[in-house]
Amino acid sequence: MYYIGIDIGGTNLKAGLVDEGYQIAATKKMPLKFESMEQMGRTLAEMAVALVEENGISRDQVASVGMGFPGPVDDKNGVVIKTVNIPIRSMPVAEMFHKHWDLPVHLGNDADCAALGEFYHYEDKNIESLILVTLGTGIGTGIILNGKIHTGINGCAGEGGHIVIVHNGEQCTCGRRGCWERYASANALIRQTMAAMDAHPESAMWGLVGGAINRVDGKTAFEAMRKGDAAARAVVNQYLKYLGEGLSNFVNIFQPEVIALGGGVSHERDEDLLVPLQGMVFEQSFGREADRHTKLVKAKLGNDAGIIGAALLGLQ
Amino acid sequence: MYYIGIDIGGTNLKAGLVDEGYQIAATKKMPLKFESMEQMGRTLAEMAVALVEENGISRDQVASVGMGFPGPVDDKNGVVIKTVNIPIRSMPVAEMFHKHWDLPVHLGNDADCAALGEFYHYEDKNIESLILVTLGTGIGTGIILNGKIHTGINGCAGEGGHIVIVHNGEQCTCGRRGCWERYASANALIRQTMAAMDAHPESAMWGLVGGAINRVDGKTAFEAMRKGDAAARAVVNQYLKYLGEGLSNFVNIFQPEVIALGGGVSHERDEDLLVPLQGMVFEQSFGREADRHTKLVKAKLGNDAGIIGAALLGLQ
Repeated sequence: MYYIGIDIGGTNLKAGLVDEGYQIAATKKMPLKFESMEQMGRTLAEMAVALVEENGISRDQVASVGMGFPGPVDDKNGVVIKTVNIPIRSMPVAEMFHKHWDLPVHLGNDADCAALGEFYHYEDKNIESLILVTLGTGIGTGIILNGKIHTGINGCAGEGGHIVIVHNGEQCTCGRRGCWERYASANALIRQTMAAMDAHPESAMWGLVGGAINRVDGKTAFEAMRKGDAAARAVVNQYLKYLGEGLSNFVNIFQPEVIALGGGVSHERDEDLLVPLQGMVFEQSFGREADRHTKLVKAKLGNDAGIIGAALLGLQ
Repeated sequence: MYYIGIDIGGTNLKAGLVDEGYQIAATKKMPLKFESMEQMGRTLAEMAVALVEENGISRDQVASVGMGFPGPVDDKNGVVIKTVNIPIRSMPVAEMFHKHWDLPVHLGNDADCAALGEFYHYEDKNIESLILVTLGTGIGTGIILNGKIHTGINGCAGEGGHIVIVHNGEQCTCGRRGCWERYASANALIRQTMAAMDAHPESAMWGLVGGAINRVDGKTAFEAMRKGDAAARAVVNQYLKYLGEGLSNFVNIFQPEVIALGGGVSHERDEDLLVPLQGMVFEQSFGREADRHTKLVKAKLGNDAGIIGAALLGLQ
């Protein structure tokens, strides 16, 4: 049997045929053209049909379709509550899909789907809990407990980026002040790097970006640090402190088996990122005297996590 | 059938016979005299036997015994990992109990047991998630998800008091800086009240404690505020801000159906505590546009929560 997963993003729709070994057997991608919810529902169904037909799979070889949306969903009733950057509100996507194909439809939030993908692909198949923390524009988190996504009563749980860690801190887009993602997302690292460069005209970071501050990215400070630049080292140390503080908050609440870090920043060398973070999290954990501890790892699936996780909603 | 619950505290052992309606039918209390783990195990068994005999209950009317310890436990193997204020380390309490009575033994952390008690006593029996936040010397939290205690991989989860909300803030006993309980426990409120009194010799708070600052308690600022005292109002407002911030962190992570507040502070009038907190939590929730929201309530069971929850571990 196969499971279809569709990852609905702000700019693209990506669909994949996932096999029983949780691997992607085929994919299909198209730009998102949103005209109406009706058209969107039809497009999703047509995309699923095309995916099987183009790959010579018969419909009855497909067990279910799962879709990951950038927003809260009501999986039980097959409704997408709302999405960020796409004007979807209370869209009965399961019903719309069923006009074209009577296949079980499962809905998930995109960050939750990505976490589910990482969970099923984790090397130890006996784990029951994993939290995926994705460092990007903001911080996305997906929480898997007892092998299931924790969605909360309204599909809005797992917003780990919006935990205040700095009382009266920076204004966040969510309305709160001092949210973790204001300090520990990839974008926050970029802002912190730029501020340090402004304060340190002598920093080697300027050379790395050819003197153009708009070319700063999440790697700039890490790279300059490895060249021995003191200002860059201070940026990285402070960033790791913010990141480790939020990760430790998660550990003290959940004591999960695994926390996986995703996003571009997670590709930094282990000795510069995972190793110091693992030490900080251990030091700050309330369970440091216990015999089992949360393992901090790099997420494995990259951009495929969303498709795979959406498809595997069918196994939930 | 009955369920026996034993609440192991730093100074007392409290046992209760709990019926199928989750009510306490009889209790027994004794001071804790810790000599050795062997003696402690025997005392717990003897206490359970005495509880049934003194109340004319036959042993086979008892389904199980549950015990709540102040520390992490390994329920699966019947072992108490360690306790705060009692020198218990890796104590095989189930095995010890079985030398005297072959009754199923369940172990829990005391804060988790209290949360379970509140969960089973909540007016709406259809809820699946409840978080109990107890404001005392520190902040204790117990997390019930899908009707079960969330213990984490090592029994140490649910340490919600040890979430950093003030980066580089006050030193906490756990080793971290800026933990929520340093700002929002009952003890924190007392410290904040004392500091405001030092700064405001004109405050009506002085009159309430007869000029003796060591008589300040968690009610002082609330009472003076109701008399119109400005310094007291500032203390309460800031305290509620800290408290609401941590509660909102929990909402954004879990979106639980219910958060119950326990401890002495929770008895303040609703308009001074629950109503403003509910507003703050709603404002700061990532799911404020959703149709279901976390309900903030006062915990109901008081000191009995530990006994009832320990007994009801047998229903888990």
